[in-house]
Amino acid sequence: MPELRQNVATREWVIISTERAKRPGDFVDPSRALTETRPARMASCPFCPGNEGAAGVPVLSIEGEGGWLARVVPNKYPALSESCDLDRAFRGIERHMSGFGVHEVLVESPLHNVTTALQSEAEVARVLRAFRARGEELARDERILVTIFFKNHGPGAGTSLEHPHSQMISLPIVPHHVRGRLQDAASYFDEHGSCVFCDMWRQELEAGARVVAEGEHCVAFIPFAAFSPFHTWIIPKRHRALFIRASDPEIEDVARVLRSTLRRMYKGLHDPDFNYVVRTAPNHEEQSRSYHWYLSIVPKVTRPAGFEIGSGMFINTALPEESARFLREVGDEAGG
Amino acid sequence: MPELRQNVATREWVIISTERAKRPGDFVDPSRALTETRPARMASCPFCPGNEGAAGVPVLSIEGEGGWLARVVPNKYPALSESCDLDRAFRGIERHMSGFGVHEVLVESPLHNVTTALQSEAEVARVLRAFRARGEELARDERILVTIFFKNHGPGAGTSLEHPHSQMISLPIVPHHVRGRLQDAASYFDEHGSCVFCDMWRQELEAGARVVAEGEHCVAFIPFAAFSPFHTWIIPKRHRALFIRASDPEIEDVARVLRSTLRRMYKGLHDPDFNYVVRTAPNHEEQSRSYHWYLSIVPKVTRPAGFEIGSGMFINTALPEESARFLREVGDEAGG
Repeated sequence: MPELRQNVATREWVIISTERAKRPGDFVDPSRALTETRPARMASCPFCPGNEGAAGVPVLSIEGEGGWLARVVPNKYPALSESCDLDRAFRGIERHMSGFGVHEVLVESPLHNVTTALQSEAEVARVLRAFRARGEELARDERILVTIFFKNHGPGAGTSLEHPHSQMISLPIVPHHVRGRLQDAASYFDEHGSCVFCDMWRQELEAGARVVAEGEHCVAFIPFAAFSPFHTWIIPKRHRALFIRASDPEIEDVARVLRSTLRRMYKGLHDPDFNYVVRTAPNHEEQSRSYHWYLSIVPKVTRPAGFEIGSGMFINTALPEESARFLREVGDEAGG
Repeated sequence: MPELRQNVATREWVIISTERAKRPGDFVDPSRALTETRPARMASCPFCPGNEGAAGVPVLSIEGEGGWLARVVPNKYPALSESCDLDRAFRGIERHMSGFGVHEVLVESPLHNVTTALQSEAEVARVLRAFRARGEELARDERILVTIFFKNHGPGAGTSLEHPHSQMISLPIVPHHVRGRLQDAASYFDEHGSCVFCDMWRQELEAGARVVAEGEHCVAFIPFAAFSPFHTWIIPKRHRALFIRASDPEIEDVARVLRSTLRRMYKGLHDPDFNYVVRTAPNHEEQSRSYHWYLSIVPKVTRPAGFEIGSGMFINTALPEESARFLREVGDEAGG
């Protein structure tokens, strides 16, 4: 029988569709060429060493003995621009603001043929630390209200660039969706006297069935009301609203668990396209008792359609408990 | 310079990205096989005449002289089931409801090789009348709070079935997203004393730049803050919260304008994949002064990625005014 589930934090309902149920293996596309089979370096890639001029002047560069290890550059085709003034004009239905903002690209490695799942823990931690460093720097600008940190892996996840990279977009507004999440978390706090994300990771850990991996400082699990197959949250155990205030041990532990989770997906689902995003409160909400930063991973194994657009709900054809067991059993060791 | 725009009804911000701007022709994929080049009948298609047994017993069949013209059948793989009891159990973070609901498929034509753009006005009106008839019938069941009416055309829009069809899913809950839209419309009403959708179609008609087509009873336009290229709304001029209460002249006029809009897209964008959805208030909100039913068309010419997941915002690489002018100039005549 089908089931409706509601995510207690986002208040979003999902249909867990058992009639349409698929086995974890059904989400695998064995015809895909794995990331590791690419060349380590491509002459035509703007992010490969040797082509630094094409990528632009870095705002952050992390150097190793043989050259740079990771670097942040301005996006060549930025969605928003730092050189805009911050103006705003609301005339009837036409609500306009100038496109002030910052759009940066984080090149995660000099190697063309890696992805998070294939990198070392130290390399993944370097990426998250670079996110944090840029986010901290950008938060000093009072015009910036929130920064969205995200990674698109593969064409199904919206990127045509193969070289491992992620992006940051800093916004002069709080998106309606983010505002809604903050309000829902505040309502939960008013009703229960606790942070819904703190309650969630504790209860998920206790239930166990949906846990994918646990670290000292964070838990990775497939939410009870996951909106798509293998949709995974990584919640830090310590309550903290802002990602950019995470401590070094937290960053390192989240990197370890993120890598472990993505290795399980790489192995079990054959290097699926995916997005991950860091969800954080806006910069001025640092003191929030009700919102809590976390990381959300969405493998692109299905495609939203008219029902999802019309209702904002999703139909998930995989049982979260089964998907989590699959990822636990796949393990995160190479080869396996 | 890039620009941020907010949709006054949905409160959603969008980035209109001029740096990444594309011309309308850039969204065309000339390698696509047009719907009209398919065979008119396929022996293997469950919705083609002759295979009625495969599609199931119809709950509605509209008959013509040579057989059925359109029919509604239960979905063979329903997302929700009518045979569930309506039970609900909220235990901590586990918020569960049984999967009660109704999931039906509307087969829009006996012909395999048509789509809305290729049908007559009478045929398109038949589809909308069938939606309305089923929606009215289902609304008599008090367990059903809202019905989502939608069409997926093409694999990029989430359907693998070629035969022209659309779907209805009736829900025992109000999706969080729909609840949010209702609240936002109510806030606008409190502030302005008017329905935001009534204000919107009037101001769009007055501005003119984003209008695609106008009928006696409705207006099709690309919203000021359209979230993706060629995203189009058709708003009926008369204030009415519930789609299922639309009058015959309204249904016929919306059908005419919907067909005209989709013909422009078929011609100008080379038969793009698209979704359309009927957005309506829940059944018990018939008296609402602030919500207003409308139809939303989303051609699938781009793909959401990490930024969209993280922020709930979209980056639109097409200027709504330019897209609307393109569709006006393409016209809706055959050949052209």
